[in-house]
Amino acid sequence: MGRTAGRSHAVILAGGAGERFWPASRQKHPKPFLKVIAGKSLLDATLERARRFAGRDRVWVVCGREHARAVRRATGLPARRILVEPARRNTAMAVGLAAVRIAAEDPGAVLAVLPADHVISDARAFSSALRRAADAARSAEVLVTLGVKPTRPETGYGYIQVGPPAAGHRGLRRVRRFVEKPDAGRARRYLRRGGYLWNAGIFVWTVQAILEEIEACAPDLFRALAPLGSVRRPSAAALDRAYRRAPSLPIDVAVMERSRRVWTIPVSFHWSDVGTWQSLAEELGVRPGRTRVVAGDLAFDDEGGNLVWGDRRPIALLGVEGLAVIDTGDALLVARLDRGSDVRRVVAELKAKGRQDAT
Amino acid sequence: MGRTAGRSHAVILAGGAGERFWPASRQKHPKPFLKVIAGKSLLDATLERARRFAGRDRVWVVCGREHARAVRRATGLPARRILVEPARRNTAMAVGLAAVRIAAEDPGAVLAVLPADHVISDARAFSSALRRAADAARSAEVLVTLGVKPTRPETGYGYIQVGPPAAGHRGLRRVRRFVEKPDAGRARRYLRRGGYLWNAGIFVWTVQAILEEIEACAPDLFRALAPLGSVRRPSAAALDRAYRRAPSLPIDVAVMERSRRVWTIPVSFHWSDVGTWQSLAEELGVRPGRTRVVAGDLAFDDEGGNLVWGDRRPIALLGVEGLAVIDTGDALLVARLDRGSDVRRVVAELKAKGRQDAT
Repeated sequence: MGRTAGRSHAVILAGGAGERFWPASRQKHPKPFLKVIAGKSLLDATLERARRFAGRDRVWVVCGREHARAVRRATGLPARRILVEPARRNTAMAVGLAAVRIAAEDPGAVLAVLPADHVISDARAFSSALRRAADAARSAEVLVTLGVKPTRPETGYGYIQVGPPAAGHRGLRRVRRFVEKPDAGRARRYLRRGGYLWNAGIFVWTVQAILEEIEACAPDLFRALAPLGSVRRPSAAALDRAYRRAPSLPIDVAVMERSRRVWTIPVSFHWSDVGTWQSLAEELGVRPGRTRVVAGDLAFDDEGGNLVWGDRRPIALLGVEGLAVIDTGDALLVARLDRGSDVRRVVAELKAKGRQDAT
Repeated sequence: MGRTAGRSHAVILAGGAGERFWPASRQKHPKPFLKVIAGKSLLDATLERARRFAGRDRVWVVCGREHARAVRRATGLPARRILVEPARRNTAMAVGLAAVRIAAEDPGAVLAVLPADHVISDARAFSSALRRAADAARSAEVLVTLGVKPTRPETGYGYIQVGPPAAGHRGLRRVRRFVEKPDAGRARRYLRRGGYLWNAGIFVWTVQAILEEIEACAPDLFRALAPLGSVRRPSAAALDRAYRRAPSLPIDVAVMERSRRVWTIPVSFHWSDVGTWQSLAEELGVRPGRTRVVAGDLAFDDEGGNLVWGDRRPIALLGVEGLAVIDTGDALLVARLDRGSDVRRVVAELKAKGRQDAT
């Protein structure tokens, strides 16, 4: 692949199932489509951020077959910009597919990888960080990952231990190592000591650099991808073959933790991966005595501190606090907010019971 | 009114609003219509008990205009047996109306007054108690009230302090006094000491005795009733006039607490007025770790100890216990069971907000 001063592309990863947002999220209506904040879906907000970086014409979405139509409707993107995965193979393959497809069109492209289901409140600061990351990615041929300055001893995120400043790129740092989700004690130490950032899963790199690093760090994945790189638009059969061969790994594990050319750009704007009802509740400002209503008709609530997502019918909460009450037209969840990560168990049990209708 | 050896009649009082069972109970679908136990409504079960005492043809129901049609449908009773109140005037007037109407047909009648929304599990023991009460009511011309032996220091019921045995009527006792709902300390003393019974609001008397005692103890009420007694079937206008004049009092306050001819029959079968979601939960055997589902589709519940009343949609409860989750097609209540008596506040607030649709 040749090297040119390629343009900026953005790749939105919309492949997640979002089971932890059941029953609002479903297999056919996953988390990126949820209109959780100010009536806007997470995907809508991500699309806006992507366009700010890449312009109208160079935004791509990777998603599963079952969501392709909804993604088209929601984004208005042309079909050629929607990369439909024939199977679920985690983020390494999604990123790899996007890289080979973009390389075929624009071999010098720099691309930003944006998960479709994050919340970022400061769009300008975010854009500016992506631009500085893109400059570094282009000129130093590095993989840049966004590192968010921790504001609390969070145990739900992976961390990046920062290394020395990257010479000639003000604000960017080398990465010393990636750290798995820590326990509470270590999370507190990271926060106290400094020098640790949350790994946001937002990346900037050139297609060439990421493909080189996939080849170096994840040769299996590279071999699966290689046949897709030689044509502008691979056939469905070629795609199926590639996905059958591809390992199912997160890009962090497949590449980032192994590569020697990873930098990070520390940022301090508000970011959240809104992984659970609890983190959405925090995002919306739920706290003791203060309930937030995403949608619906909360008719009574004497204690407060709840997250309510209703349908048309009136909801009354009496004597309860710290609950998520999620009442979609066709299912009802009442859960302690601090048990948010166990919502997956509910979905697993529904599936085990053959209740596919409810998942 | 002449005295004959009249027959046994039963009067079912179905006038309550049952606001504490919102949202399952509504103005148009109050508590007696709720199918809470084994798919049978409280009214169905009361009708069975009434027929056991009075036979098929001498069962009467007193209810409000808005429920007359539903009562007819549910009971299959002929229209002349359904006494429709033009306004809500509490139980003294309901009992008085039944007494004058039954007296016009059967002046020597003995009648049992049965609230439509109680749970009694031992139908035979109940029938036997009513029959013994009816014997005493006929021969001693007394008002007999059922007294249930307390099994716990309940603060939600009024109590009867029993007096000496009634000579010649084995098992019946004179009543020393009626006691308002006690505080927890007194309720414990009553239970420990013995000699106190729960006032179940179930009465047996002859029409003549109750009308005499209404005249003696509640002359206002008697004056309102008197014009209704001279005809077999009073006109709607006469009924309206009577209800405008009638005081709104419970029969306990208007007559039982004042009358000098009140006996009680102590019984020890299981009885409950199922006044709240919590007492229904107890009735159904909800306890820590054990959820009961009145209706609906409980798909997940990891803690247990909840009362669930669902509609068609699946319900998942995660990390919660001691809750009533009542999901009708058109409203949802999530309440701590031990706050059951405050459900009235929910209904009051809905009304105050002009949400008559939801009450």
